[in-house]
Amino acid sequence: MIFFFHDIVYNGENYKNATSAIVGAPEWGNRTIMSSPNNFGDMIVFDDPITLDNNLHSPPIGRAQGMYFYDQKDTFSSWLGFSFVFNNTDYKGSLNFAGHDPLMNKTRDISVIGGTGDFFMTRGIATLSTDAFEGSVYFRLRVHVKLYECWKLL
Amino acid sequence: MIFFFHDIVYNGENYKNATSAIVGAPEWGNRTIMSSPNNFGDMIVFDDPITLDNNLHSPPIGRAQGMYFYDQKDTFSSWLGFSFVFNNTDYKGSLNFAGHDPLMNKTRDISVIGGTGDFFMTRGIATLSTDAFEGSVYFRLRVHVKLYECWKLL
Amino acid sequence: MIFFFHDIVYNGENYKNATSAIVGAPEWGNRTIMSSPNNFGDMIVFDDPITLDNNLHSPPIGRAQGMYFYDQKDTFSSWLGFSFVFNNTDYKGSLNFAGHDPLMNKTRDISVIGGTGDFFMTRGIATLSTDAFEGSVYFRLRVHVKLYECWKLL
Repeated sequence: MIFFFHDIVYNGENYKNATSAIVGAPEWGNRTIMSSPNNFGDMIVFDDPITLDNNLHSPPIGRAQGMYFYDQKDTFSSWLGFSFVFNNTDYKGSLNFAGHDPLMNKTRDISVIGGTGDFFMTRGIATLSTDAFEGSVYFRLRVHVKLYECWKLL
Repeated sequence: MIFFFHDIVYNGENYKNATSAIVGAPEWGNRTIMSSPNNFGDMIVFDDPITLDNNLHSPPIGRAQGMYFYDQKDTFSSWLGFSFVFNNTDYKGSLNFAGHDPLMNKTRDISVIGGTGDFFMTRGIATLSTDAFEGSVYFRLRVHVKLYECWKLL
Repeated sequence: MIFFFHDIVYNGENYKNATSAIVGAPEWGNRTIMSSPNNFGDMIVFDDPITLDNNLHSPPIGRAQGMYFYDQKDTFSSWLGFSFVFNNTDYKGSLNFAGHDPLMNKTRDISVIGGTGDFFMTRGIATLSTDAFEGSVYFRLRVHVKLYECWKLL
Protein backbone atom coordinates (compact mmCIF):
# COMPACT_ATOMS: atom_id res chain seq x y z
CA MET A 1 0.00 0.00 0.00
CA ILE A 2 1.52 3.27 -1.15
CA PHE A 3 0.08 6.62 -0.14
CA PHE A 4 1.05 10.28 -0.25
CA PHE A 5 0.27 12.93 2.24
CA HIS A 6 0.57 16.66 1.92
CA ASP A 7 1.46 19.12 4.66
CA ILE A 8 1.02 22.88 4.42
CA VAL A 9 2.34 24.60 7.55
CA TYR A 10 0.63 27.73 8.83
CA ASN A 11 2.98 30.71 8.43
CA GLY A 12 0.80 33.54 9.67
CA GLU A 13 -0.72 34.31 6.27
CA ASN A 14 -2.10 31.05 4.86
CA TYR A 15 -4.71 30.08 7.44
CA LYS A 16 -7.25 28.92 4.88
CA ASN A 17 -4.96 26.54 3.01
CA ALA A 18 -2.80 25.46 5.95
CA THR A 19 -3.22 21.84 7.04
CA SER A 20 -0.91 22.10 10.05
CA ALA A 21 0.23 24.58 12.68
CA ILE A 22 3.16 25.00 15.03
CA VAL A 23 1.75 24.58 18.55
CA GLY A 24 4.95 24.38 20.58
CA ALA A 25 8.38 25.93 20.13
CA PRO A 26 11.48 26.51 22.21
CA GLU A 27 12.03 29.85 23.93
CA TRP A 28 13.98 31.13 20.90
CA GLY A 29 11.25 30.16 18.41
CA ASN A 30 7.72 31.20 17.57
CA ARG A 31 4.57 29.79 16.00
CA THR A 32 4.72 31.24 12.50
CA ILE A 33 8.36 30.67 11.49
CA MET A 34 10.36 27.47 12.02
CA SER A 35 13.02 27.87 14.72
CA SER A 36 16.66 28.12 13.79
CA PRO A 37 18.77 26.03 13.52
CA ASN A 38 17.11 22.92 12.09
CA ASN A 39 13.65 23.68 13.51
CA PHE A 40 14.78 22.06 16.79
CA GLY A 41 11.96 21.98 19.29
CA ASP A 42 9.15 22.99 16.96
CA MET A 43 6.04 20.85 17.46
CA ILE A 44 3.41 20.71 14.72
CA VAL A 45 -0.14 19.35 14.76
CA PHE A 46 -1.43 18.30 11.35
CA ASP A 47 -4.60 17.32 9.51
CA ASP A 48 -3.28 16.39 6.07
CA PRO A 49 -5.06 14.91 3.03
CA ILE A 50 -3.93 11.45 1.88
CA THR A 51 -3.91 10.81 -1.86
CA LEU A 52 -3.04 7.83 -4.02
CA ASP A 53 -0.73 9.83 -6.28
CA ASN A 54 1.58 12.75 -5.75
CA ASN A 55 -0.96 15.41 -6.74
CA LEU A 56 -2.12 17.66 -3.89
CA HIS A 57 -5.37 18.20 -5.76
CA SER A 58 -6.27 14.54 -6.27
CA PRO A 59 -9.36 13.44 -4.33
CA PRO A 60 -8.26 12.61 -0.79
CA ILE A 61 -8.92 9.02 0.30
CA GLY A 62 -8.33 9.74 3.97
CA ARG A 63 -6.61 12.02 6.46
CA ALA A 64 -3.22 11.82 8.13
CA GLN A 65 -3.76 13.34 11.57
CA GLY A 66 -1.34 13.74 14.43
CA MET A 67 1.87 15.54 15.31
CA TYR A 68 5.55 15.74 14.58
CA PHE A 69 8.35 17.63 16.20
CA TYR A 70 11.93 18.38 15.24
CA ASP A 71 14.32 16.69 17.62
CA GLN A 72 17.89 17.23 16.47
CA LYS A 73 20.06 20.28 16.94
CA ASP A 74 22.61 19.69 14.17
CA THR A 75 20.44 18.42 11.29
CA PHE A 76 16.81 18.04 10.26
CA SER A 77 15.24 15.12 12.08
CA SER A 78 11.80 14.58 13.53
CA TRP A 79 9.62 12.27 15.59
CA LEU A 80 6.10 11.37 14.51
CA GLY A 81 2.97 10.25 16.34
CA PHE A 82 -0.05 10.11 14.04
CA SER A 83 -2.79 8.06 12.39
CA PHE A 84 -4.03 7.39 8.90
CA VAL A 85 -7.80 7.63 9.01
CA PHE A 86 -9.82 5.96 6.26
CA ASN A 87 -13.56 5.96 5.74
CA ASN A 88 -14.18 4.98 2.13
CA THR A 89 -15.30 2.00 0.09
CA ASP A 90 -11.87 0.36 0.13
CA TYR A 91 -10.79 0.92 3.73
CA LYS A 92 -12.52 1.77 6.95
CA GLY A 93 -10.42 2.20 10.08
CA SER A 94 -7.19 3.71 11.28
CA LEU A 95 -3.50 2.90 11.32
CA ASN A 96 -1.43 4.27 14.22
CA PHE A 97 2.20 5.20 13.65
CA ALA A 98 5.12 6.27 15.86
CA GLY A 99 8.80 6.69 15.34
CA HIS A 100 11.96 8.48 14.45
CA ASP A 101 12.17 10.17 11.04
CA PRO A 102 15.68 11.29 10.04
CA LEU A 103 14.36 13.29 7.14
CA MET A 104 17.62 13.95 5.34
CA ASN A 105 17.78 10.21 4.54
CA LYS A 106 16.31 9.14 1.22
CA THR A 107 14.14 6.53 2.95
CA ARG A 108 13.47 5.88 6.61
CA ASP A 109 11.30 3.49 8.57
CA ILE A 110 8.80 4.14 11.33
CA SER A 111 6.61 1.69 13.27
CA VAL A 112 2.97 0.82 12.71
CA ILE A 113 2.05 0.33 16.36
CA GLY A 114 -1.59 -0.66 15.97
CA GLY A 115 -4.77 -0.25 14.02
CA THR A 116 -8.53 -0.34 14.22
CA GLY A 117 -11.42 -1.33 11.93
CA ASP A 118 -10.05 -3.03 8.81
CA PHE A 119 -6.60 -2.73 10.39
CA PHE A 120 -7.58 -4.27 13.72
CA MET A 121 -4.49 -5.03 15.87
CA THR A 122 -2.07 -4.71 12.96
CA ARG A 123 1.66 -4.07 13.28
CA GLY A 124 4.26 -3.30 10.67
CA ILE A 125 6.64 -0.79 9.19
CA ALA A 126 6.04 2.31 7.10
CA THR A 127 8.83 3.45 4.81
CA LEU A 128 8.79 7.20 4.33
CA SER A 129 10.42 9.26 1.62
CA THR A 130 10.19 12.98 0.98
CA ASP A 131 8.54 13.31 -2.39
CA ALA A 132 8.62 17.11 -2.48
CA PHE A 133 9.77 19.90 -0.24
CA GLU A 134 9.08 23.57 -0.89
CA GLY A 135 10.69 25.90 1.62
CA SER A 136 9.34 25.45 5.10
CA VAL A 137 5.67 25.58 4.12
CA TYR A 138 4.87 22.57 1.90
CA PHE A 139 6.14 19.02 1.91
CA ARG A 140 4.80 15.76 0.56
CA LEU A 141 5.65 12.36 2.01
CA ARG A 142 5.42 9.07 0.18
CA VAL A 143 4.46 6.28 2.59
CA HIS A 144 4.86 2.61 1.84
CA VAL A 145 2.89 0.70 4.48
CA LYS A 146 3.98 -2.91 5.08
CA LEU A 147 1.88 -4.86 7.57
CA TYR A 148 3.48 -7.97 9.06
CA GLU A 149 0.92 -8.79 11.73
CA CYS A 150 -2.71 -8.92 10.68
CA TRP A 151 -5.65 -10.11 12.73
CA LYS A 152 -9.12 -11.05 11.72
CA LEU A 153 -12.05 -10.80 14.12
CA LEU A 154 -14.29 -13.81 13.41
CA MET B 1 -12.75 -4.12 31.86
CA ILE B 2 -14.76 -0.92 31.84
CA PHE B 3 -13.45 2.30 33.34
CA PHE B 4 -14.35 5.97 33.41
CA PHE B 5 -12.02 8.89 33.49
CA HIS B 6 -12.76 12.49 34.22
CA ASP B 7 -11.04 15.51 32.71
CA ILE B 8 -11.36 19.06 34.05
CA VAL B 9 -9.45 21.49 31.85
CA TYR B 10 -7.75 24.51 33.40
CA ASN B 11 -9.54 27.69 32.26
CA GLY B 12 -7.59 30.33 34.17
CA GLU B 13 -9.84 30.22 37.24
CA ASN B 14 -10.11 26.59 38.34
CA TYR B 15 -6.49 25.72 39.13
CA LYS B 16 -7.35 23.74 42.24
CA ASN B 17 -9.89 21.42 40.64
CA ALA B 18 -8.35 21.24 37.17
CA THR B 19 -6.89 17.87 36.21
CA SER B 20 -5.47 19.05 32.89
CA ALA B 21 -3.98 22.09 31.23
CA ILE B 22 -3.45 23.40 27.70
CA VAL B 23 0.33 23.42 27.16
CA GLY B 24 0.50 24.10 23.43
CA ALA B 25 -1.73 26.05 21.07
CA PRO B 26 -1.54 27.49 17.58
CA GLU B 27 -0.61 31.12 17.05
CA TRP B 28 -4.29 32.12 17.11
CA GLY B 29 -4.99 30.27 20.39
CA ASN B 30 -4.04 30.60 24.03
CA ARG B 31 -3.70 28.43 27.12
CA THR B 32 -6.94 29.23 28.98
CA ILE B 33 -9.56 29.07 26.22
CA MET B 34 -9.82 26.36 23.56
CA SER B 35 -8.88 27.67 20.11
CA SER B 36 -11.52 28.31 17.48
CA PRO B 37 -12.61 26.56 15.35
CA ASN B 38 -12.78 23.02 16.74
CA ASN B 39 -9.88 23.46 19.20
CA PHE B 40 -7.49 22.68 16.32
CA GLY B 41 -3.91 22.62 17.52
CA ASP B 42 -4.60 22.73 21.25
CA MET B 43 -2.45 20.27 23.17
CA ILE B 44 -3.48 19.22 26.67
CA VAL B 45 -1.56 17.36 29.39
CA PHE B 46 -3.77 15.50 31.85
CA ASP B 47 -3.69 13.73 35.20
CA ASP B 48 -7.24 12.39 35.49
CA PRO B 49 -8.83 10.12 38.10
CA ILE B 50 -10.11 6.73 36.92
CA THR B 51 -13.29 5.42 38.50
CA LEU B 52 -15.35 2.26 38.11
CA ASP B 53 -18.61 4.15 37.65
CA ASN B 54 -19.55 7.45 36.10
CA ASN B 55 -19.35 9.46 39.32
CA LEU B 56 -16.50 11.96 39.48
CA HIS B 57 -16.54 11.65 43.25
CA SER B 58 -16.22 7.87 43.44
CA PRO B 59 -12.92 6.67 44.92
CA PRO B 60 -10.35 6.69 42.11
CA ILE B 61 -8.79 3.31 41.36
CA GLY B 62 -5.97 4.76 39.27
CA ARG B 63 -4.88 7.70 37.15
CA ALA B 64 -5.12 8.34 33.43
CA GLN B 65 -2.00 10.35 32.61
CA GLY B 66 -0.78 11.66 29.28
CA MET B 67 -1.77 14.06 26.55
CA TYR B 68 -4.25 14.70 23.79
CA PHE B 69 -4.41 17.27 21.07
CA TYR B 70 -7.10 18.37 18.65
CA ASP B 71 -6.09 17.55 15.09
CA GLN B 72 -8.90 18.41 12.74
CA LYS B 73 -9.84 21.80 11.35
CA ASP B 74 -13.46 21.12 10.36
CA THR B 75 -14.76 19.01 13.26
CA PHE B 76 -13.79 17.88 16.76
CA SER B 77 -11.20 15.14 16.59
CA SER B 78 -8.17 14.36 18.71
CA TRP B 79 -5.13 12.16 19.08
CA LEU B 80 -4.23 10.53 22.38
CA GLY B 81 -0.99 9.28 23.93
CA PHE B 82 -1.46 8.26 27.55
CA SER B 83 -1.35 5.55 30.20
CA PHE B 84 -3.67 4.06 32.75
CA VAL B 85 -1.72 3.72 35.98
CA PHE B 86 -2.94 1.29 38.61
CA ASN B 87 -1.54 0.61 42.05
CA ASN B 88 -4.26 -1.10 44.05
CA THR B 89 -5.20 -4.54 45.30
CA ASP B 90 -6.74 -5.60 41.98
CA TYR B 91 -4.25 -4.23 39.50
CA LYS B 92 -0.65 -3.08 39.63
CA GLY B 93 0.97 -1.75 36.48
CA SER B 94 0.26 0.43 33.50
CA LEU B 95 -1.49 0.23 30.15
CA ASN B 96 -0.13 2.41 27.33
CA PHE B 97 -2.51 3.78 24.71
CA ALA B 98 -2.15 5.67 21.43
CA GLY B 99 -4.46 6.56 18.62
CA HIS B 100 -6.95 8.63 16.77
CA ASP B 101 -10.15 9.66 18.57
CA PRO B 102 -12.87 11.13 16.31
CA LEU B 103 -14.87 12.32 19.25
CA MET B 104 -18.10 13.14 17.48
CA ASN B 105 -18.56 9.39 16.86
CA LYS B 106 -20.59 7.51 19.45
CA THR B 107 -17.80 4.96 19.90
CA ARG B 108 -14.26 4.91 18.58
CA ASP B 109 -11.29 2.59 18.98
CA ILE B 110 -7.71 3.33 19.95
CA SER B 111 -4.74 0.98 20.34
CA VAL B 112 -3.35 -0.53 23.52
CA ILE B 113 0.31 -0.48 22.47
CA GLY B 114 1.88 -2.07 25.53
CA GLY B 115 1.75 -2.54 29.24
CA THR B 116 3.80 -3.17 32.35
CA GLY B 117 3.35 -5.00 35.66
CA ASP B 118 0.13 -7.02 35.58
CA PHE B 119 -0.27 -5.88 31.98
CA PHE B 120 3.24 -6.93 30.87
CA MET B 121 3.60 -6.79 27.06
CA THR B 122 -0.12 -6.64 26.45
CA ARG B 123 -1.79 -5.38 23.26
CA GLY B 124 -5.40 -4.69 22.46
CA ILE B 125 -8.06 -2.16 21.68
CA ALA B 126 -9.84 0.37 23.87
CA THR B 127 -13.30 1.47 22.83
CA LEU B 128 -14.01 5.03 23.94
CA SER B 129 -17.32 6.79 24.31
CA THR B 130 -18.06 10.24 25.64
CA ASP B 131 -20.18 9.69 28.71
CA ALA B 132 -20.60 13.38 29.54
CA PHE B 133 -19.48 16.67 28.14
CA GLU B 134 -20.01 20.00 29.86
CA GLY B 135 -18.84 22.97 27.81
CA SER B 136 -15.12 22.98 27.23
CA VAL B 137 -14.17 22.34 30.85
CA TYR B 138 -15.42 18.89 31.89
CA PHE B 139 -15.75 15.65 30.02
CA ARG B 140 -15.95 12.03 31.05
CA LEU B 141 -14.85 9.13 28.89
CA ARG B 142 -16.04 5.54 29.18
CA VAL B 143 -13.25 3.15 28.25
CA HIS B 144 -13.80 -0.49 27.44
CA VAL B 145 -10.37 -2.18 27.45
CA LYS B 146 -10.10 -5.39 25.41
CA LEU B 147 -6.76 -7.15 25.59
CA TYR B 148 -6.02 -9.66 22.81
CA GLU B 149 -2.37 -10.37 23.57
CA CYS B 150 -1.45 -11.23 27.12
CA TRP B 151 1.88 -12.48 28.42
CA LYS B 152 2.83 -14.13 31.63
CA LEU B 153 6.34 -13.88 33.06
CA LEU B 154 7.12 -17.27 34.63
CA MET C 1 21.44 -4.26 26.77
CA ILE C 2 22.16 -1.46 29.21
CA PHE C 3 22.53 2.14 28.12
CA PHE C 4 22.74 5.57 29.68
CA PHE C 5 21.39 8.78 28.32
CA HIS C 6 22.10 12.30 29.41
CA ASP C 7 19.70 15.23 29.35
CA ILE C 8 20.72 18.87 29.77
CA VAL C 9 17.66 21.12 29.75
CA TYR C 10 17.89 24.61 28.24
CA ASN C 11 17.54 27.20 31.01
CA GLY C 12 18.01 30.43 29.07
CA GLU C 13 21.78 30.51 29.50
CA ASN C 14 23.17 27.15 28.38
CA TYR C 15 22.11 27.01 24.73
CA LYS C 16 25.39 25.52 23.53
CA ASN C 17 25.46 22.59 25.95
CA ALA C 18 21.73 22.02 26.23
CA THR C 19 20.44 18.79 24.69
CA SER C 20 16.76 19.55 25.31
CA ALA C 21 14.34 22.44 25.52
CA ILE C 22 10.94 23.15 27.00
CA VAL C 23 8.56 23.66 24.05
CA GLY C 24 5.21 23.65 25.82
CA ALA C 25 4.13 24.76 29.27
CA PRO C 26 0.89 25.54 31.07
CA GLU C 27 -0.33 29.13 31.34
CA TRP C 28 1.48 29.51 34.69
CA GLY C 29 4.82 28.25 33.34
CA ASN C 30 7.44 29.37 30.87
CA ARG C 31 10.13 27.88 28.64
CA THR C 32 13.28 28.50 30.69
CA ILE C 33 12.22 27.40 34.20
CA MET C 34 10.29 24.27 35.08
CA SER C 35 6.74 25.04 36.19
CA SER C 36 5.72 24.77 39.81
CA PRO C 37 4.57 22.51 41.37
CA ASN C 38 6.14 19.30 40.05
CA ASN C 39 6.79 20.65 36.53
CA PHE C 40 3.18 19.72 35.66
CA GLY C 41 2.44 20.43 32.02
CA ASP C 42 6.00 21.12 30.88
CA MET C 43 6.77 19.42 27.57
CA ILE C 44 10.40 18.88 26.58
CA VAL C 45 11.93 17.88 23.24
CA PHE C 46 15.31 16.18 23.55
CA ASP C 47 18.32 15.10 21.50
CA ASP C 48 20.45 13.29 24.08
CA PRO C 49 23.68 11.32 23.70
CA ILE C 50 23.57 7.61 24.58
CA THR C 51 26.65 6.14 26.26
CA LEU C 52 27.61 2.69 27.48
CA ASP C 53 28.68 3.92 30.90
CA ASN C 54 27.54 6.69 33.18
CA ASN C 55 30.07 9.27 31.94
CA LEU C 56 28.56 12.16 30.01
CA HIS C 57 31.87 12.55 28.19
CA SER C 58 32.18 8.95 26.97
CA PRO C 59 31.90 8.59 23.19
CA PRO C 60 28.19 8.49 22.32
CA ILE C 61 27.03 5.31 20.59
CA GLY C 62 23.72 6.77 19.50
CA ARG C 63 21.10 9.41 20.23
CA ALA C 64 17.95 9.31 22.34
CA GLN C 65 15.51 11.61 20.53
CA GLY C 66 11.94 12.45 21.34
CA MET C 67 9.86 14.12 24.00
CA TYR C 68 8.68 13.85 27.56
CA PHE C 69 6.19 15.82 29.57
CA TYR C 70 5.35 16.03 33.26
CA ASP C 71 1.85 14.73 33.89
CA GLN C 72 1.15 14.71 37.60
CA LYS C 73 0.14 17.60 39.82
CA ASP C 74 1.14 16.18 43.20
CA THR C 75 4.48 14.47 42.46
CA PHE C 76 7.10 14.16 39.73
CA SER C 77 5.88 11.88 36.99
CA SER C 78 6.28 11.97 33.25
CA TRP C 79 5.25 10.38 29.96
CA LEU C 80 7.79 9.55 27.28
CA GLY C 81 7.61 9.13 23.50
CA PHE C 82 11.05 8.73 21.97
CA SER C 83 13.51 6.61 20.02
CA PHE C 84 17.00 5.25 20.46
CA VAL C 85 18.84 5.83 17.20
CA PHE C 86 21.93 3.75 16.44
CA ASN C 87 24.24 3.95 13.46
CA ASN C 88 27.47 2.24 14.45
CA THR C 89 29.31 -1.03 13.88
CA ASP C 90 27.31 -2.89 16.54
CA TYR C 91 23.79 -1.63 15.89
CA LYS C 92 22.03 0.08 13.03
CA GLY C 93 18.38 1.03 13.43
CA SER C 94 15.99 2.49 15.93
CA LEU C 95 13.98 1.41 18.95
CA ASN C 96 10.69 3.22 19.62
CA PHE C 97 9.50 3.69 23.19
CA ALA C 98 6.34 4.98 24.85
CA GLY C 99 5.01 4.97 28.35
CA HIS C 100 4.47 6.25 31.81
CA ASP C 101 7.54 7.09 33.93
CA PRO C 102 6.81 7.68 37.63
CA LEU C 103 10.26 9.06 38.22
CA MET C 104 10.27 9.02 42.00
CA ASN C 105 10.28 5.20 41.85
CA LYS C 106 13.68 3.55 41.93
CA THR C 107 12.88 1.59 38.77
CA ARG C 108 9.99 1.83 36.33
CA ASP C 109 9.04 0.11 33.10
CA ILE C 110 8.02 1.58 29.77
CA SER C 111 7.07 -0.17 26.52
CA VAL C 112 9.25 -0.84 23.50
CA ILE C 113 6.52 -0.41 20.88
CA GLY C 114 8.51 -1.16 17.74
CA GLY C 115 11.83 -0.94 16.00
CA THR C 116 13.52 -0.66 12.64
CA GLY C 117 16.75 -1.90 11.06
CA ASP C 118 18.46 -4.38 13.39
CA PHE C 119 15.45 -3.99 15.68
CA PHE C 120 12.85 -4.68 12.98
CA MET C 121 9.36 -5.17 14.50
CA THR C 122 10.68 -5.72 18.00
CA ARG C 123 8.65 -5.35 21.18
CA GLY C 124 9.70 -5.38 24.81
CA ILE C 125 10.16 -3.49 28.02
CA ALA C 126 12.73 -0.91 29.05
CA THR C 127 13.46 -0.56 32.74
CA LEU C 128 14.48 2.98 33.63
CA SER C 129 16.30 4.23 36.68
CA THR C 130 17.52 7.71 37.47
CA ASP C 131 21.29 7.42 37.70
CA ALA C 132 21.90 11.08 38.51
CA PHE C 133 19.86 14.20 38.97
CA GLU C 134 21.32 17.67 39.34
CA GLY C 135 18.73 20.37 39.99
CA SER C 136 16.37 20.83 37.08
CA VAL C 137 19.08 21.02 34.42
CA TYR C 138 20.89 17.67 34.22
CA PHE C 139 19.70 14.13 34.64
CA ARG C 140 21.01 10.78 33.54
CA LEU C 141 18.83 7.73 32.96
CA ARG C 142 19.98 4.13 33.01
CA VAL C 143 17.98 2.06 30.55
CA HIS C 144 17.84 -1.71 30.57
CA VAL C 145 16.29 -2.80 27.27
CA LYS C 146 14.66 -6.26 27.27
CA LEU C 147 13.30 -7.42 23.92
CA TYR C 148 10.74 -10.25 24.03
CA GLU C 149 9.63 -10.22 20.40
CA CYS C 150 12.31 -10.27 17.75
CA TRP C 151 11.85 -10.71 14.00
CA LYS C 152 14.29 -11.55 11.30
CA LEU C 153 13.69 -10.51 7.68
CA LEU C 154 14.94 -13.42 5.53
